[in-house]
Amino acid sequence: MPSAEQIRQTVHRYLEAVEKGATDDIANLYADDATVEDPVGGEVHIGRQAIHGFYANIAGANCSAEMVTLRALGHEAAFFWNLTVKFGDAGGMRIEIISVMTFDEDARIASMKAYWSQDDVTQL
Amino acid sequence: MPSAEQIRQTVHRYLEAVEKGATDDIANLYADDATVEDPVGGEVHIGRQAIHGFYANIAGANCSAEMVTLRALGHEAAFFWNLTVKFGDAGGMRIEIISVMTFDEDARIASMKAYWSQDDVTQL
Repeated sequence: MPSAEQIRQTVHRYLEAVEKGATDDIANLYADDATVEDPVGGEVHIGRQAIHGFYANIAGANCSAEMVTLRALGHEAAFFWNLTVKFGDAGGMRIEIISVMTFDEDARIASMKAYWSQDDVTQL
Repeated sequence: MPSAEQIRQTVHRYLEAVEKGATDDIANLYADDATVEDPVGGEVHIGRQAIHGFYANIAGANCSAEMVTLRALGHEAAFFWNLTVKFGDAGGMRIEIISVMTFDEDARIASMKAYWSQDDVTQL
């Protein structure tokens, strides 16, 4: 089982890669056969290639991420965080997200589920 | 699939029943074959009878629950909340918890996972 410290490191790397819109870096944090459901209730993206394609949505975007609270337990993490996306001079939006991840033996992300809806989006 | 409103109602009933330490009411919110992992990484309690036994820990306790933020999506809910437990005149403690639940067709809780550790406990 990965240590809590390894899990925390992967989560923080994930937020850093999301901030940069670095889709290759994000995809490399995932296990080969990982799954992504973002938001929960929507399509499940299976495998690193599909996951890479999903994150193409934020490639090069001007994002910032703020961790509110993080728990690393067993082979899982749950965290509450804010993602702010800026649209050049055209404002932006902040999404308040509860994310749950599971991890493999190498502390790569085996699954990610993001709990948010339009109710959790604030236009800036 | 249960509606988001039905899921929200079950979650709020759960917090109310926890506040009262009403273990019968809590257990009745769960499906027959439900599972509880609280905290995540610990023992998994399977079935309503085992779940009832687990909640005996808080039977008659003086608790209060505060919802910070709740998401109901698909057949799931994720919420960040605080549970405060008072020990008579001997102080108490507040636990900051991220909980994830899944629900059956009748909006009964099919699984509950609570993400918290000693790091999320404040002595009062």
